[in-house]
Order: sequence, then structure tokens, then C-alpha cells
Amino acid sequence: MVQTVDGDGEEGAEAGMDPRNGTDNDTGRIEAFSDGVFAIAITLLVIEIGVPHVDDASLGATLFGELVEQWPSYLGYVISFLQIGVIWANHHNRFRFITRSDHILLFLNTLFLMCVAFIPFPTAVLSEYLEGTTAERTTAGVLYAGTLMLTAIFFTLLWLYVAGNRRLLDQSVDPAMVRSMTRRFILGTFFYVLAFLLAFVSLTISLILLVGLALIFILPEPSERTPTRRSQRSRVSRTR
Amino acid sequence: MVQTVDGDGEEGAEAGMDPRNGTDNDTGRIEAFSDGVFAIAITLLVIEIGVPHVDDASLGATLFGELVEQWPSYLGYVISFLQIGVIWANHHNRFRFITRSDHILLFLNTLFLMCVAFIPFPTAVLSEYLEGTTAERTTAGVLYAGTLMLTAIFFTLLWLYVAGNRRLLDQSVDPAMVRSMTRRFILGTFFYVLAFLLAFVSLTISLILLVGLALIFILPEPSERTPTRRSQRSRVSRTR
Amino acid sequence: MVQTVDGDGEEGAEAGMDPRNGTDNDTGRIEAFSDGVFAIAITLLVIEIGVPHVDDASLGATLFGELVEQWPSYLGYVISFLQIGVIWANHHNRFRFITRSDHILLFLNTLFLMCVAFIPFPTAVLSEYLEGTTAERTTAGVLYAGTLMLTAIFFTLLWLYVAGNRRLLDQSVDPAMVRSMTRRFILGTFFYVLAFLLAFVSLTISLILLVGLALIFILPEPSERTPTRRSQRSRVSRTR
Amino acid sequence: MVQTVDGDGEEGAEAGMDPRNGTDNDTGRIEAFSDGVFAIAITLLVIEIGVPHVDDASLGATLFGELVEQWPSYLGYVISFLQIGVIWANHHNRFRFITRSDHILLFLNTLFLMCVAFIPFPTAVLSEYLEGTTAERTTAGVLYAGTLMLTAIFFTLLWLYVAGNRRLLDQSVDPAMVRSMTRRFILGTFFYVLAFLLAFVSLTISLILLVGLALIFILPEPSERTPTRRSQRSRVSRTR
Repeated sequence: MVQTVDGDGEEGAEAGMDPRNGTDNDTGRIEAFSDGVFAIAITLLVIEIGVPHVDDASLGATLFGELVEQWPSYLGYVISFLQIGVIWANHHNRFRFITRSDHILLFLNTLFLMCVAFIPFPTAVLSEYLEGTTAERTTAGVLYAGTLMLTAIFFTLLWLYVAGNRRLLDQSVDPAMVRSMTRRFILGTFFYVLAFLLAFVSLTISLILLVGLALIFILPEPSERTPTRRSQRSRVSRTR
Repeated sequence: MVQTVDGDGEEGAEAGMDPRNGTDNDTGRIEAFSDGVFAIAITLLVIEIGVPHVDDASLGATLFGELVEQWPSYLGYVISFLQIGVIWANHHNRFRFITRSDHILLFLNTLFLMCVAFIPFPTAVLSEYLEGTTAERTTAGVLYAGTLMLTAIFFTLLWLYVAGNRRLLDQSVDPAMVRSMTRRFILGTFFYVLAFLLAFVSLTISLILLVGLALIFILPEPSERTPTRRSQRSRVSRTR
Repeated sequence: MVQTVDGDGEEGAEAGMDPRNGTDNDTGRIEAFSDGVFAIAITLLVIEIGVPHVDDASLGATLFGELVEQWPSYLGYVISFLQIGVIWANHHNRFRFITRSDHILLFLNTLFLMCVAFIPFPTAVLSEYLEGTTAERTTAGVLYAGTLMLTAIFFTLLWLYVAGNRRLLDQSVDPAMVRSMTRRFILGTFFYVLAFLLAFVSLTISLILLVGLALIFILPEPSERTPTRRSQRSRVSRTR
Repeated sequence: MVQTVDGDGEEGAEAGMDPRNGTDNDTGRIEAFSDGVFAIAITLLVIEIGVPHVDDASLGATLFGELVEQWPSYLGYVISFLQIGVIWANHHNRFRFITRSDHILLFLNTLFLMCVAFIPFPTAVLSEYLEGTTAERTTAGVLYAGTLMLTAIFFTLLWLYVAGNRRLLDQSVDPAMVRSMTRRFILGTFFYVLAFLLAFVSLTISLILLVGLALIFILPEPSERTPTRRSQRSRVSRTR
């Protein structure tokens, strides 16, 4: 059904697209499935935070003290929640321009989601070893930043496939905007690679960079600061 | 698709809103994602209830007795289920008036969901220490009421951002109704702060207040008791 | 959006329903949220099945043997999956006739979902103690059948509220059909109460009854066997 | 709502289908519920990967070494993620042709989902015993391949029921295409049976076959390579 209405877009009708032939318009279902994976991965993060057990209360241990000592778990929760939240928002924003799908897109999206759904694991490892030895901190940080880097890489590959030759994009999208988005993808991936490399040197700096990357998202996209330029095309994009 | 129909609202067309510029109409997707997080957080609550092990059956222990002894887990389950259920219903009711979104809304909503998805953890701590020492009960209660207070605060911030200057609201909403909703938000937050402060004094009273806040929701909103007044505007709001 | 189209039904327009006044048309969102809870509860069932550990391989223990010994877990999984699946299908079928919602419906639905989301817990207890002592089997069975009974009771209360005075029903529904559905609800609840009572006597018979109740669902409803009678109203119901 | 638009298909109107009589058009809801189960099952896979504990650091054990030693868990995660992802895509593709539902379809779909939601368990067993004794490897592999085989069988049964006499299919679908799909289902099931039988001989070969079956999905369907043939029917199928 969702596909149906998507499929009523002008350009789809013009091209005589057939829902049954590899390049149909059912991105709505892909988005819904992806949203489910995002929502579950982000909510599963809390499971990794264990209830502390106050064993030796006689030795002065208190529930409050035990809860405070678990601060790495809360930090990991907050950072990963932000990361997944921002990745979701970006995925969501980009799929607004993707109006058709094929098997390759489905496959790349599955690999991308495989990374997203994996994030709770490196988060748990990070929380467990944030106060470990230097070697343990480095290992946990490299695993964590590496997972996010891999997520960014697969997301970029997905975009490059979709945007190459405007393969699966809404035909009405401004080519300059597509190029601008592609640049942003490559720039973003560069910073995730940087965070990965920094994790070998300093876990703290790597995490600060990763949090910064997430917070940058609050700022509107450069291309979004000049809405008037494209306002005449708003009708088309809205009926997408 | 969901965005499309939202985007067909009159005021959106008039303002020439562009889905690509920061203030678009895709609140449907935000709601769907939020609903996913709500549904998962509320259903994960049951995971924290462990299957009791009847170890010393020879000493008179029975499965029935062990199950009964776990009553704090059931209480925690019921209270948190009600809380999340009511927060969901409120989120849902408020988003009906929000017809546009931007990066700040996405960010505030993410912080809000971060609190909601966290609730299973303080619930588990509460269930574990409801029969603990006075200090443990206080700590668990403060953590629990504090998490709900933080959830309410982020929800109120989200609303204040959205409603300030009617920034992202449906333009056809009655300003008096917006003011009434804002008052309700602030009043609700006040009571959650009160429940938080009471948790330092008495866990029981704090929990009773929290359950009461949830049950109040069954009552219709004051503004909902006079439907006739606004019935002439019903067409507009329905086509939103 | 979903609400919008629901709200475009003729009877809604005639009655001048206002989405903001307690009895609006947003049952789509309630269904979506409920579906999320159903999907998560049904999928969480698998978490309760633990990976067996072959500790004393020297004593002839094999992975195959350990897996076979876990048969109560598989049985619990299958029975509860069927139960939740059938409850979902019924919930889904009934909500097709509910075109408006209010706070009481939201609240009753939350209590109903509270029971549904709880099912993984009695399932785990049942699996753990299916081969326990007679007392343990009885306790586990009573807890299990009792949870399902409570689910049925809240579902029936929800229906009675919705159908009483045709309060929130699609106005075009045949009154005779509503009465027939109400009878089915009461009959179904009676059988769940019976399964609960039987659990005190024989866990096996109680479980057989519960599985039977689920399997009966495969049969079409009596009212569905004479589609021709209502075919002239099909247009109205389809545009709901 | 979803049902509504589905129900607006021409053939439904012609046949005077009534949403209340067993063969209605609400496949959208079934898909949404199934998608939820898929999304949760695929995301739960990560829960089975435990955080390693570096106990005997004095003996040279490192977090890195412990993480590397867990490779079977990562392998299991990747393989099962691919499997569930591909099953989802196939389920999604096939349901585009199913425009009506009845109780039998609901039941078969529930049995199918029961297998899908079970996959995290054999995955965990496989990961745990991938480096076990030959007998353990065989048992784990047979359980794993057997679960996937059962999933394929139920999926095929569902399709045979739906496609038999074009019972619940979109009436406009080319009969030749339906036959082609049925052949693909039977061929696919044959390979899953083969993977199951191979698991008794060699776990490695069985897993390679299963991964290969998933990767084949990247290739477009044979029937999708000649879109021109059916382009004149595109309008009908899009309005489904």
C-alpha cells in the first residue's frame, strides 16, 4: 500500500516502472524495516546495564556507591544512543530522496543494518573496560570506533550506489544537491576513520570526536539554510 | 508517503515548505520511530523479572512462595508499564499538533527517548531493592523518580521548543489551547519534580504520587470536555 | 496521517468529530503501538530458551541429549507463540470495527497489553517447572493459564466498553454482528477461566485446552461463512 | 487505513469483498506485524554475543585475544543476519502479490514467523559449539540448518496455499509468473533440505551452502530481467 502511493509519483508513472521488476518504488517498506531495527538496537542498549549487587554492605558498600561506580555503563548508553539516533535521522533523511529500490540496495542496506544492530555489543565491551588497563581501553575503543566506522562506510557505499548515475534517486532532485550530499558522506566517513585511528592513540579523544560528530547533526545542513532557492520545487518533492 | 499527506496541509502549501529544508513535514516518521522505542521499552520490562529457582525445597521453599516473594518485580512491572503507556499516549496526543520537524526537534526527541528507553534499568533497581535497607530504598526510589522527572523535563523542553512562536505547530491550532497545553506540561513536570523530592523522604509516597499521575490520565483533558465549542473547526484538524 | 484518512469516514464527518476531543479517530496509531508490543513479546519468547552447557561430557552427556532435555522450553515457546499470535489476530480483527478512541479505551488497551507483554515470564516459569514436582507443575500452570485468563478478561472488558451503546464502533456495523462478537468474547473468556481452573487439577489438560482454543482460530468465524448477506455494505466498511 | 487503500483495488471492489468475511484485504497489517517480528529477531542476534571477561590477565590473556576467540559468535551473527535479512526481503516481495487474507494464511504465517523468531536460538548454539567435538558440531549444524529448512518449508506451504487456485493473489498477476515463483519456492526449499542433510556430513559445507543461498539473492530474479514484457500491466500492479 505504502508502495502504491509512492508509486503514484509522476516520474514513476512516466518511466512505466513495474513494481515487480527490481527497480520498484517500495522504499517505504525498507524504511519501515530499518526503523524497526534502529528502534530495537537503540532500546536494547539499556539491557547491557546490569543491576548492581551490594554484596559487602558491611564493608561500607552502598547501592548509591555501586550505581555511581557503573558510570561507564551510563556513558556508553548515552554515547551509543546519540550515535544510533543520529544515524537513524541521517538514514531517514537520505531515504527521502530514494524513490526506487533493487536487490543491491536491499543487500547494502542489510549490511548497513548489520553494523547498526551490532553496536550494543561494542558498547557493552567499552562500558566494561573503560576503566581497564591501557591495552584493554585501547582494544575496547578500537572495537567501538571501528564498528561506527564500518557503519559509516556501508552507509556511504549505499549512497554511492544509489546516487551513481542517479540510479535510484528521485529524478527531480537537484544534481548539485546530490553532489553536496555525496561530499558530506565522504567527509563524514573520513571523520569516522579518523576516530578509529585516534582510538589507537587515545580512547578519550576518539570518544570526544565521536560525540562531536553526533552533536554536529543538530546544526542544519548547509544546503538547508537556503530554502528559498528550491521552494519552487517543493510541490514535486512533497508529492514524492 | 506518510510525509506526503502531512505535507498536503493547507498551511504547508501556502508557506511553500520544502521537505528538504530543516522544517519539513515528516513528523509521521518521527512518531513511528518513537512508537517503536516506546513499544520495545515497555515490553523489555518483563525481561527484568527473573524465573525463581527453588533451591532448598527441603527447607519448605515452594515455587509458589518464591513467586510471591518476587512481588516487588511485579509491582515495578505494573508501575513502569503504566508510566511508559501514559507517556506514549501523551507523546502521541501532542505530536498530532506538530506538523513540521527540524533538527532541533529530532535532537530533543532523541534525548527524550533516551530517558524513556532507560526506564527498564531504574525499574529493575527499584524491584531489586524495594525490600532493602532504608538507604537502598531511598537510592532506588530517587533513581526511579529521577528518571521519570528527567523524562518529563525533556518532554516539556520539546514542547516549549515546538510551541514557542508556534514554531512547528499546526497553524490552525487555537492559541488558547496551546497555552492550556503548555500549562499542563509545566504542571505535570512540577508533580514529577515533587515525586522526585518525595523519594528522598518516603519511597512509598513517591510511588503513590507517580501511580496517581498515571491514573489521572484516564480522565479526559479539561479542554476535551467541551467538544462542541470547537466542532466547527473539526474539518481543518481532521485534514491535518 | 493515518488518523486523517480514518477520520474521513462518512459517519465521522457527519458527527463532526474533533480529533482533539477524547473521541477521535486515531485507532490506527493504537493498533500500530499494540502491534509493536505484540511483535516484541512474541519474539522475546526465544530469549528464555538458554543455550545448554555440556559440562560432564565424560559421563556420556552430549549436546544432542542436552538439547532434547530442554523440550519443555520448546513446548512453552510453541504454545505461547500460538497464543500471542492468535491474540494479535483477534485484536487486529476487532480493531477494524473500532473507529474512534478515547482515554478509557487507551487505558484498557494498556492494561490488556500489560498482560500480553507479561506472557514471556509465565512461559519461562512453565518451561522451567514442567518437569518439576506436582506442586511446582500446578503453580506454574496456574500462573500460565491465569495470565492468559487475565489477558482474555481485559480484552473482553475493552470490547464491552467499546461496543456498549456502540460507543466507539464503526456506526455502519450490523448490530446483530456486534452482539455475535460480544457472545464470542464472553464464550472465549469462559474457556480461559475453565483452563485456569483446570490448571489446579491437571496441567496437561489445561494446556491441551489452551492449545485447542488457539487452533480453533483457524476455523473461520461463523459470521464469516455468509459473506453474501453483508456484501452490499462492503463499500462502507472498506472505506472505513 | 492501510486496509482501506488496499481495499480500493479494482478487483476487490468488483468481487464485492467484505473486510469482515475471512478473505479481506488487510495484508498490510500482516506485513507490518511480520516486519516487526523480523526486525526484532534480526536485532536480538547481538544479545547472544557475550562480553568476554579477561579473568587470568596474569597468564597473558588479553581483551583482544578474548575478543578474537569469540569469532564463532561473530560468524553466527553475520550468517543469521544475512539469512533473516534475505527471508524478510523474500517475504516482502511475495506479499506484494497477496492482496487478500484469511484465517489459514494468518495461521501459516504465524507458523512461519515462529521459525523465524526461533533462529537466534540455533544461532547461539552454533556459535557456542562451532569449535566443539565433531558430535557437537554436527548437532549444532543440524539444528541450525534444520531450523532454516523448516522456515523455508513453512514459507513454501504458505505460498502454495496462497497461490493454489490463485486463492489470495492479486488477480492481475500473470499465471506464468505465479508458476515461475512456485518453482523458485520449491527449488529454494530443495536447497535448504540439501543444506540440512549436508550438516550431518560436514558443518562447513552446509554453512557455505546456506551463505551461498543468501548471496544468490543479490542477483535479480530471472523474471525481473525482462521488465518490458509486463510494463503494460504496471499501472494495475501499482494500484494494488
